[in-house]
Amino acid sequence: MEVCIVAVGTELLLGQITDTNARVVAEALAAHGHSSRLRFTVGDNHQQIVWALSEGLARADAVITMGGLGPTQDDITREAVAAVAGVPLERDEEVAQRIRAIFADRGRSMPSNNLRQALVPRGARVIEQRKGTAPGLLVPVGRKLIACLPGVPFELEDMLDEVLAELRARDDRPYVLGSRVVRTWGLGESRLAELVAERFDALEGTETTLAFLASGIEGIKVRVTTRAASDDAVRARLDAEEAVLRELLGDYVFGVDEDTLETVVARALGTHGLDLAVAESLTGGMLASRLVAVPGASAWFRGGVVAYDPAVKHEVLGVAAPRVVSEEAAREMALGVRELLHASVGVATTGVAGPESLEGQPPGTVWIGVAIGQRSAARMVQLLGDRERVRTYATASALDLLRLTLAGSSRGLDPR
Amino acid sequence: MEVCIVAVGTELLLGQITDTNARVVAEALAAHGHSSRLRFTVGDNHQQIVWALSEGLARADAVITMGGLGPTQDDITREAVAAVAGVPLERDEEVAQRIRAIFADRGRSMPSNNLRQALVPRGARVIEQRKGTAPGLLVPVGRKLIACLPGVPFELEDMLDEVLAELRARDDRPYVLGSRVVRTWGLGESRLAELVAERFDALEGTETTLAFLASGIEGIKVRVTTRAASDDAVRARLDAEEAVLRELLGDYVFGVDEDTLETVVARALGTHGLDLAVAESLTGGMLASRLVAVPGASAWFRGGVVAYDPAVKHEVLGVAAPRVVSEEAAREMALGVRELLHASVGVATTGVAGPESLEGQPPGTVWIGVAIGQRSAARMVQLLGDRERVRTYATASALDLLRLTLAGSSRGLDPR
Repeated sequence: MEVCIVAVGTELLLGQITDTNARVVAEALAAHGHSSRLRFTVGDNHQQIVWALSEGLARADAVITMGGLGPTQDDITREAVAAVAGVPLERDEEVAQRIRAIFADRGRSMPSNNLRQALVPRGARVIEQRKGTAPGLLVPVGRKLIACLPGVPFELEDMLDEVLAELRARDDRPYVLGSRVVRTWGLGESRLAELVAERFDALEGTETTLAFLASGIEGIKVRVTTRAASDDAVRARLDAEEAVLRELLGDYVFGVDEDTLETVVARALGTHGLDLAVAESLTGGMLASRLVAVPGASAWFRGGVVAYDPAVKHEVLGVAAPRVVSEEAAREMALGVRELLHASVGVATTGVAGPESLEGQPPGTVWIGVAIGQRSAARMVQLLGDRERVRTYATASALDLLRLTLAGSSRGLDPR
Repeated sequence: MEVCIVAVGTELLLGQITDTNARVVAEALAAHGHSSRLRFTVGDNHQQIVWALSEGLARADAVITMGGLGPTQDDITREAVAAVAGVPLERDEEVAQRIRAIFADRGRSMPSNNLRQALVPRGARVIEQRKGTAPGLLVPVGRKLIACLPGVPFELEDMLDEVLAELRARDDRPYVLGSRVVRTWGLGESRLAELVAERFDALEGTETTLAFLASGIEGIKVRVTTRAASDDAVRARLDAEEAVLRELLGDYVFGVDEDTLETVVARALGTHGLDLAVAESLTGGMLASRLVAVPGASAWFRGGVVAYDPAVKHEVLGVAAPRVVSEEAAREMALGVRELLHASVGVATTGVAGPESLEGQPPGTVWIGVAIGQRSAARMVQLLGDRERVRTYATASALDLLRLTLAGSSRGLDPR
């Protein structure tokens, strides 16, 4: 079905909060095969909400509102929905009872404006409030639907399944939709588009489409979307298309869907029974932090040394190379931290984050070293951007180089 | 002015990413005194973009688009804007030259579709691309304006000032607007609102307003906005209001505007002629990374040890305490890293990030240690949330405790 999302809240328009609800609802709709081509964000303003609801109903089979169901005067989604549906608001005694009970349970007296939350457009079905005081609403408007969800994220998420079930019940499609994200690192967006161009064109007119999604530090994603008669058929087609993309893009593909460079590294270390230590200069802890973010990291991550001051490289890691932005320094740092922390694998970063040059080398010059046992190797990468960007990309480059090296890729290092 | 935001990107509608740009742009508009009552989110679809642009122009003085300026086939914001403005797209040779230069600098050949980014609607002004390949656009449409920004957050943020300047130039208000953000850490939103309530009410009816912005990891901000006849008058009023807020909130205020906890720590270390080393367990490099992010960190930051494995705490940092989530361990880690890296100050974090408990203590239990010379102290904080949130808040808590301790605050530690 085509579903239009209407986010309600002046705090969204003032930029006081980021609308994370929109992503949650949109992702759920896409995962359930619904299309959503338009989203409105409006303030706590009757006229604006009514306008967005009307436009949404004209363009879609259903509208989902988020927010504006609270007890205060500026929570007016209920009124706007009733106006658009052309029905009166009536107090639902069951809902009122539940609200009173919530306050009684907390041992608090109920401000009377809370009963505004028991007002329900005539003909609407209520989604029970299990996490807060505001119920959700399923309001039929002719053959279409307005579903109202609260703006508090965990209340919204709790009610979302019921909205999806209602959409499913109203849906008469004979097919299932599905998508998969193929994730790459190391290719520019335009180069990637070039490699995939022929396949992109070949899919024209079929039920499978490709889309490119440049997400900066997360690399470039290729999203495959398709539809077929059954879940199995969708899965088979996504599998086949993933295989085609892996063939075209080789090991620039590091994973799919929820994979990250660090979870892929974690898997590879686990497979080989290895553990890891890191030595960081310009990345300054960012590499360690991404690794520690993986749940269960204690199984394969020993720790690291942030050797920001050159003296720390020499004294703590035993680096002998006089120049700290060099192949030798990167190799010695990787070997040194591996030994110091008794790990089987060491990874090191050293380079120039900027804004100033270092040892006559410009910002963005970064050496990445990998040590496995007594063997080591290093590679230079030249990165663009400001201090934060250079550090962030140096971190991702180190993870990628480690991934490729552990996989024995020809693009990885060959420690000797 | 009334400004309508149009976010472009199928990935937004599919819920693959959260629209953080919308918050950034909306917050900047509000801070500069503009109103924004409506926001559209549309896909990479010509007809939808054209519709949203037209509706936006009909309802506002200016429209700001975000996204769809990249080099690939699905980046079609330029075309839609030209269609709405009723002008052709023409190649801007200066822009084309800059794009070629970016590729040449990287020593890479330029895929030809990158030149799509040099297409500019006739009559438009270009916002130079300093961070990426896509320029921004300022497109006059009659007496109104469409401003186009790239979807990549740091490219967008880099160009935002130029859009705000253009809006300012088009604005015929006889007064100057200004705002300042007073930044706090350690207070809940409702407690902060309580402390400021009286002042908030006292400003009613004046030209100065206060707004609270809860921004999670960045703490809670209080934005002061005012207007007056001149820049000097605005600045004087902001200074006065900042003083009032500092009086009310004490050293919960850590800075203003672009200050962060780490830049404030950096300033304090500089003032006292101290340098710093950090030892991190659960934060796993995140603390070091925030410190290294400060330009010029090499003047006062020595480095750190990510002691993730308990053995690293004992062997490398000389921790004797048997329980690693404890006051003793936090103090010993801070002392140990200070000594190992020859720094005057050491800071340590150790605790339970989750999802599992550790040493019988629940996720969110965090000890922060500070060592100055041979003296040390530690404090426990109990944090809520998932692994990432606990680590992030532990990092900020460590920075805040260090700041307070260096400032001699009664809320800081008293190392003995």
